[in-house]
Amino acid sequence: MGGEKKYHVSIIGSGNVAFHLAKSMYNADVMVDEIWSPNRKNRETLAKAVMAKATESLAGIIPTSNFYLIAVPDDKVKEVVGNLPRLKGIVAHTSGITPMEVISSRFKNSGVFYPLQTFSKQRDVNMTTIPFCIEGNTDAAAEKLTNLAGKLSQKIYAVNSNERKELHLAAVFVSNFVNHLYHTANTLIEENGLSFELLLPLIEEVAAKVKTLSPAAAQTGPAHRNDENTLNMHREMLNPHPDIKALYNLITHQIIKQYHE
Amino acid sequence: MGGEKKYHVSIIGSGNVAFHLAKSMYNADVMVDEIWSPNRKNRETLAKAVMAKATESLAGIIPTSNFYLIAVPDDKVKEVVGNLPRLKGIVAHTSGITPMEVISSRFKNSGVFYPLQTFSKQRDVNMTTIPFCIEGNTDAAAEKLTNLAGKLSQKIYAVNSNERKELHLAAVFVSNFVNHLYHTANTLIEENGLSFELLLPLIEEVAAKVKTLSPAAAQTGPAHRNDENTLNMHREMLNPHPDIKALYNLITHQIIKQYHE
Repeated sequence: MGGEKKYHVSIIGSGNVAFHLAKSMYNADVMVDEIWSPNRKNRETLAKAVMAKATESLAGIIPTSNFYLIAVPDDKVKEVVGNLPRLKGIVAHTSGITPMEVISSRFKNSGVFYPLQTFSKQRDVNMTTIPFCIEGNTDAAAEKLTNLAGKLSQKIYAVNSNERKELHLAAVFVSNFVNHLYHTANTLIEENGLSFELLLPLIEEVAAKVKTLSPAAAQTGPAHRNDENTLNMHREMLNPHPDIKALYNLITHQIIKQYHE
Repeated sequence: MGGEKKYHVSIIGSGNVAFHLAKSMYNADVMVDEIWSPNRKNRETLAKAVMAKATESLAGIIPTSNFYLIAVPDDKVKEVVGNLPRLKGIVAHTSGITPMEVISSRFKNSGVFYPLQTFSKQRDVNMTTIPFCIEGNTDAAAEKLTNLAGKLSQKIYAVNSNERKELHLAAVFVSNFVNHLYHTANTLIEENGLSFELLLPLIEEVAAKVKTLSPAAAQTGPAHRNDENTLNMHREMLNPHPDIKALYNLITHQIIKQYHE
């Protein structure tokens, strides 16, 4: 029979990113050797789901994996790298904001394996359309990480540490900050006894619009028209919510500045 | 043979809302009698597309329509209502922010016909899933407007003027303001020579997430984790963009306040 040799991967972490990477690798016929996490319940649950070993000891991690993917909170990457033993496989982190240097200064074969997406354990994601941003400390490492990403997704991009940092910042605006605006709208809706469901078709269309129009061309609304009556009525409605009013005023000001100054 | 009597509708306006209402009514087998607009090209193009009469004169509008839908910018509704002749059909506006009173003080049969969506002429929308917020100055008017909306959409809600105003304000946050965040991300992406396309799967997932999770449960990111290293790195990157930095700081502050205070 023969066929391709299977990739072996160890996942360092058991949070949202580790969870989705491990599961999609398992489904893509990549061997997940081991799940490391300081959280016993998380590592055991995830290891069981992908038929991997669960381990608490970074020093005792399986030394024969082809890849070690570090999927821990950004501010823990450095510490984890420092506690790993010498390894022959490629060690890569999955962080948008952390330079490759944090790993490549210690490991001969290293890189970055950054899936540009927001992950929650409660939601399945379609991994095949997620952009994977790949960087390697050598051409060989980059190629191997690209091949691994290719098992999961059709969208692989070579992105260096500086570009990735800018991408991560832009992603915060369209993801975490957008979600905060959803939360803000939800606050207003709920206190008026209205259903957030009413806003869902609008939310969907605004997100879909920028697939075919630039955000500048897609802009509509009272600030875009500089409709002072509506703006003032909104501001008055927000008097009981000084925080939301501050947000309203800042974004409104920036839209007016963009289109009317 | 026989069957239902067709509805006759005149559309006052030729902008984005008028355009999509007229087209979807035409496709739903509602007779569009007339398109009024001060913009000659717009009214003639739209009238031709829906086999209607184009008119420049509000005073001379066809008096036999069952409905007159006013789809003009919010700050023009009052003026248009003042210039309409006496009419027997139901006169309704399509504005989120304008009280019904603006029309009902003048017309015996009147109401509101507010589709909660963002419209651009360049984009088709699926009208059947758009929430229509209906109000009538009498039960009979509300019922007739509900029936008309039912020709276009499966989602009809009775919403009074005060609720509609709150809904409109919440919609600004999830629509115009969200789009401004997309624009802001695009600014950062473009100046680094990266493609906005990289962000599209993320944009889509963030919008999809709140169909099944509350915005509070869906929140992720460095502000949510109060990850000071990442926050400070982002702030430093934004030094050349004081406006974007102000936006970053305000939203970050509000997320931290929500989850950590």
